[in-house]
Amino acid sequence: MSEAAQTLEGWYALHDFRSIDWSAWRSLPAEERNNLKDELLSFLAKWSQAEQQKQGSTVIYSIVGQKADLVIMHLRETLEELNAVETEFNKSAFAQFTYPEYSYVSVVELSNYMGKPGEDPMQNPEIIARLKPILPKTKHICFYPMNKKREGNDNWYMLSMEQRRDMMRSHGMIGRTYAGKVKQIITGSVGFDDWEWGVTLFADDPLQFKKLVYEMRFDEVSARFGEFGGFYVGNLLTPDSAKQFLEI
Amino acid sequence: MSEAAQTLEGWYALHDFRSIDWSAWRSLPAEERNNLKDELLSFLAKWSQAEQQKQGSTVIYSIVGQKADLVIMHLRETLEELNAVETEFNKSAFAQFTYPEYSYVSVVELSNYMGKPGEDPMQNPEIIARLKPILPKTKHICFYPMNKKREGNDNWYMLSMEQRRDMMRSHGMIGRTYAGKVKQIITGSVGFDDWEWGVTLFADDPLQFKKLVYEMRFDEVSARFGEFGGFYVGNLLTPDSAKQFLEI
Amino acid sequence: MSEAAQTLEGWYALHDFRSIDWSAWRSLPAEERNNLKDELLSFLAKWSQAEQQKQGSTVIYSIVGQKADLVIMHLRETLEELNAVETEFNKSAFAQFTYPEYSYVSVVELSNYMGKPGEDPMQNPEIIARLKPILPKTKHICFYPMNKKREGNDNWYMLSMEQRRDMMRSHGMIGRTYAGKVKQIITGSVGFDDWEWGVTLFADDPLQFKKLVYEMRFDEVSARFGEFGGFYVGNLLTPDSAKQFLEI
Amino acid sequence: MSEAAQTLEGWYALHDFRSIDWSAWRSLPAEERNNLKDELLSFLAKWSQAEQQKQGSTVIYSIVGQKADLVIMHLRETLEELNAVETEFNKSAFAQFTYPEYSYVSVVELSNYMGKPGEDPMQNPEIIARLKPILPKTKHICFYPMNKKREGNDNWYMLSMEQRRDMMRSHGMIGRTYAGKVKQIITGSVGFDDWEWGVTLFADDPLQFKKLVYEMRFDEVSARFGEFGGFYVGNLLTPDSAKQFLEI
Amino acid sequence: MSEAAQTLEGWYALHDFRSIDWSAWRSLPAEERNNLKDELLSFLAKWSQAEQQKQGSTVIYSIVGQKADLVIMHLRETLEELNAVETEFNKSAFAQFTYPEYSYVSVVELSNYMGKPGEDPMQNPEIIARLKPILPKTKHICFYPMNKKREGNDNWYMLSMEQRRDMMRSHGMIGRTYAGKVKQIITGSVGFDDWEWGVTLFADDPLQFKKLVYEMRFDEVSARFGEFGGFYVGNLLTPDSAKQFLEI
Repeated sequence: MSEAAQTLEGWYALHDFRSIDWSAWRSLPAEERNNLKDELLSFLAKWSQAEQQKQGSTVIYSIVGQKADLVIMHLRETLEELNAVETEFNKSAFAQFTYPEYSYVSVVELSNYMGKPGEDPMQNPEIIARLKPILPKTKHICFYPMNKKREGNDNWYMLSMEQRRDMMRSHGMIGRTYAGKVKQIITGSVGFDDWEWGVTLFADDPLQFKKLVYEMRFDEVSARFGEFGGFYVGNLLTPDSAKQFLEI
Repeated sequence: MSEAAQTLEGWYALHDFRSIDWSAWRSLPAEERNNLKDELLSFLAKWSQAEQQKQGSTVIYSIVGQKADLVIMHLRETLEELNAVETEFNKSAFAQFTYPEYSYVSVVELSNYMGKPGEDPMQNPEIIARLKPILPKTKHICFYPMNKKREGNDNWYMLSMEQRRDMMRSHGMIGRTYAGKVKQIITGSVGFDDWEWGVTLFADDPLQFKKLVYEMRFDEVSARFGEFGGFYVGNLLTPDSAKQFLEI
Repeated sequence: MSEAAQTLEGWYALHDFRSIDWSAWRSLPAEERNNLKDELLSFLAKWSQAEQQKQGSTVIYSIVGQKADLVIMHLRETLEELNAVETEFNKSAFAQFTYPEYSYVSVVELSNYMGKPGEDPMQNPEIIARLKPILPKTKHICFYPMNKKREGNDNWYMLSMEQRRDMMRSHGMIGRTYAGKVKQIITGSVGFDDWEWGVTLFADDPLQFKKLVYEMRFDEVSARFGEFGGFYVGNLLTPDSAKQFLEI
Repeated sequence: MSEAAQTLEGWYALHDFRSIDWSAWRSLPAEERNNLKDELLSFLAKWSQAEQQKQGSTVIYSIVGQKADLVIMHLRETLEELNAVETEFNKSAFAQFTYPEYSYVSVVELSNYMGKPGEDPMQNPEIIARLKPILPKTKHICFYPMNKKREGNDNWYMLSMEQRRDMMRSHGMIGRTYAGKVKQIITGSVGFDDWEWGVTLFADDPLQFKKLVYEMRFDEVSARFGEFGGFYVGNLLTPDSAKQFLEI
Repeated sequence: MSEAAQTLEGWYALHDFRSIDWSAWRSLPAEERNNLKDELLSFLAKWSQAEQQKQGSTVIYSIVGQKADLVIMHLRETLEELNAVETEFNKSAFAQFTYPEYSYVSVVELSNYMGKPGEDPMQNPEIIARLKPILPKTKHICFYPMNKKREGNDNWYMLSMEQRRDMMRSHGMIGRTYAGKVKQIITGSVGFDDWEWGVTLFADDPLQFKKLVYEMRFDEVSARFGEFGGFYVGNLLTPDSAKQFLEI
């Protein structure tokens, strides 16, 4: 049985990191700023409605530091819907006061799935809930992309399936000790974006991000084979806090 | 017989990734936006006509995420024609509302071609069809550039021809299991652009991009020797969907 | 006992590197420049007050060279407060004459803490003073981010805890010979930013930065395992020198 | 005899890659565009005259893809003259409608020159013709910078002179099989720019660039020791085609 | 005796690479351009006066190629003075027609100094002349930053002091053969900027830069341990040639 066959895919994901053009925003008359805030709130309401109708899921967080001012993370059934929700926002009046910083395209994935013979995992509600999740609305988010290394003796893709499975199992056990503290969503991006996976973590206590990622780094699968891109950390934006975030 | 002699080349390729300046686009009067959309549609029609006259082939896809808003992929007989079609677009009124994001210059290539003695491959219609292809109009496109590694013990170019041929054969066999699902166009860019090859995949189901590239990554030729640039994934733009894409 | 359990965390840190748009600043009427300088001084006063109330700590230094014109380093109790102090400044009239250059998000950390059984370190005033420090106001600052390497035989995370502890002990002894000359604040950024740690040094004699970092580089923990990002060096800005810095 | 003594140097070289600001160019009244085209043609004439007077040599090619719209390659006797010709163009009215993309500073070099005892190579007309060449006006140009690797066991500069000479000889023999198809100009840039050499190829058939560079890549000197920067490929601009290139 | 103790430091150095905004410069009325040229000449005169008063040293060179149009290299007694001279220029009217390209912060250093017992090197006029040098006004300048490598078996900082001293001695002997042709100023930047050292070379014949750097590259200390940043080469700007450089 091939590697790829063990992986199940669900909703497509777009992480859309953007910054505010504060100078332009500041120079607007207060009334116009209010109109644009209302436009943004309409987007939030629309995305929330799509979530309630199980057509996808969206969260929005402010990002700490200069890498971006906010991230909008969308899950949608198809790449077309993902592109549509992105483009609709790009065309909005509010978006003209933001500029792109970084984005990531991937798909929710459940790897190493071991189904029972004859069972269709896509009929299993527990599996569906993991592949097409309603994104948590925890106080904090953490995102980073990653690869498995292919350097000299540290070449993940030259290991046997058994070696990889054993390492991933011990890796997963660390993750499980954070159950209830950190919710982890793994998205695959081979063929879609510049790294092989995206990792999105949700927690109410951001120190748990640090503890989880640091503890995992001593695990052989990360220590020898993990290659990491940029890390982004943010704070939840509710409709109310989004308004306040934009208040001048 | 030298390495280079085993490779056949066909049409030159330009992947032209561009983004829309949505602020400027939005600020135009609706009528002017309509005129510019008509200009874009004229380009599409002209490129389609060139394709019907077998003077080349062109496809246009929107790109998901912030890397670009769209890619125009052109195939043409000569570098001069390729530059001409690029420059004509650059000078257009519509293009002033776009900006360049990334491009790739290469030539369709058929490597490891083993012709029969005395046969001129360029007289073989099947070969010609592969070297001067009409680009598929599948729902999705995937593009990435790649190198063969030259690092320490993982140096592709220090292998014997037999070693390389054996590895490429097993590599090709994975590709063949995706026949009917993914159409693959390999373009060579040694001497033309920053990587050695460009890979353009076409599929109606974008998950097949992920499955194909991921499965190949465990193959020795990718695992040990593949070096990959950025990945771009997009959705087909027809004249109708292109208009809708630009509608505000 | 796990690695992560040995580490204590205190206040969150933001290093906010910004440059002045001198052209725009110069083109302002002198009176408006004075108003904006007053606005900046109000920020300094407010941040100083927060420091006196033990709600955090802030320092501001000018940066030598083109990497930035200044850095504002904030410590705050939560990521929300850190983001709030950053965003409030971003919205200010003065900030419209600056632009972002680089930032770093981390948390003050005390690693390898060995508490006595039954003792809660967060009740120990000495520990608290190190985790929630009032930032020194020395004449000079030095900042750089760093990783521990994971390359071939130089893989910090594959060493045993004993090996790491021994190396860190000898490393720390170099640091201690600079006591009274250089004050060092280590912040952890695993899960928060692109490197694993940030190092912020404070000294009245900037040559001590060079001597300390250079001497440490011969220590095995740096020689074999240290990976360093960009280095920034700056001069203290007091309310008076900040005014002078902005005087045209 | 030291390494450096074996190398002869001739004219200094500047590769000046620039793009057209098509939006600004397009928005000009046709008459003003014509004036600016005339200014560019005057530059071409002046550079051509300098070439006839053996004061240097200049070619101009359009570049395919987004890396640049054109390259102006100058050879001049001194760095001062090179800087003067560059700066004169930078100050022109036409240049205000272009922007810099990339440049390369180097000097024509003839390495491994083995003179006869007592002979002054700079009195040998054949040597002079190679060191101070009139640049070909072939239909196509290819440029890339390169280093010799210094990584682990693949360290060119740790080889003995004999090893290097043997490898370079076999390397040169590949180049010679392209005689009549590709004209190659090697420029040295140690101390002048970021790579050790620049390679400029001229050919009427651009496929020869690909074939030559690809064939050489299997040669040990490239396979093990070659490090390559970006590749640029272009089409000759004559006064007539330059005018057409700029016609809107 | 520790490593750091063997190194003496003198004046702080800033290399300030800037480009001219030729479009804005060109669009100025000739009279205003003249005023701004006069302002620049006043700076040159002021910096020259500081040099005569032994308060520092400054040179200005035009840079060949697109990396920058000019470099201003300042030496000053303290980081505060260095920042002041930089900021004063940034605020000038002339500087508004330039933009930053690159900068480097370092300190003149004399390494491996072996003093006589009881002697204070800072009382030795020969040492002082090397630590606080009047910068040469040769026709050409060359600047590049560098590191000593720490990769696998090529780890400079894991060598014994004897090994390092022997290699540096042979390295220095190459430098000495260029005495009278190339003047070399080494500045240390550990703790101040992104590389460990800056190398500034001065010569009347720029080919000597190439010959020196190339010859050294075969020396083990460079071949195995040298890591190099970007290289910049320029032509001396005197008050007269600076005026001519800016003449339109």
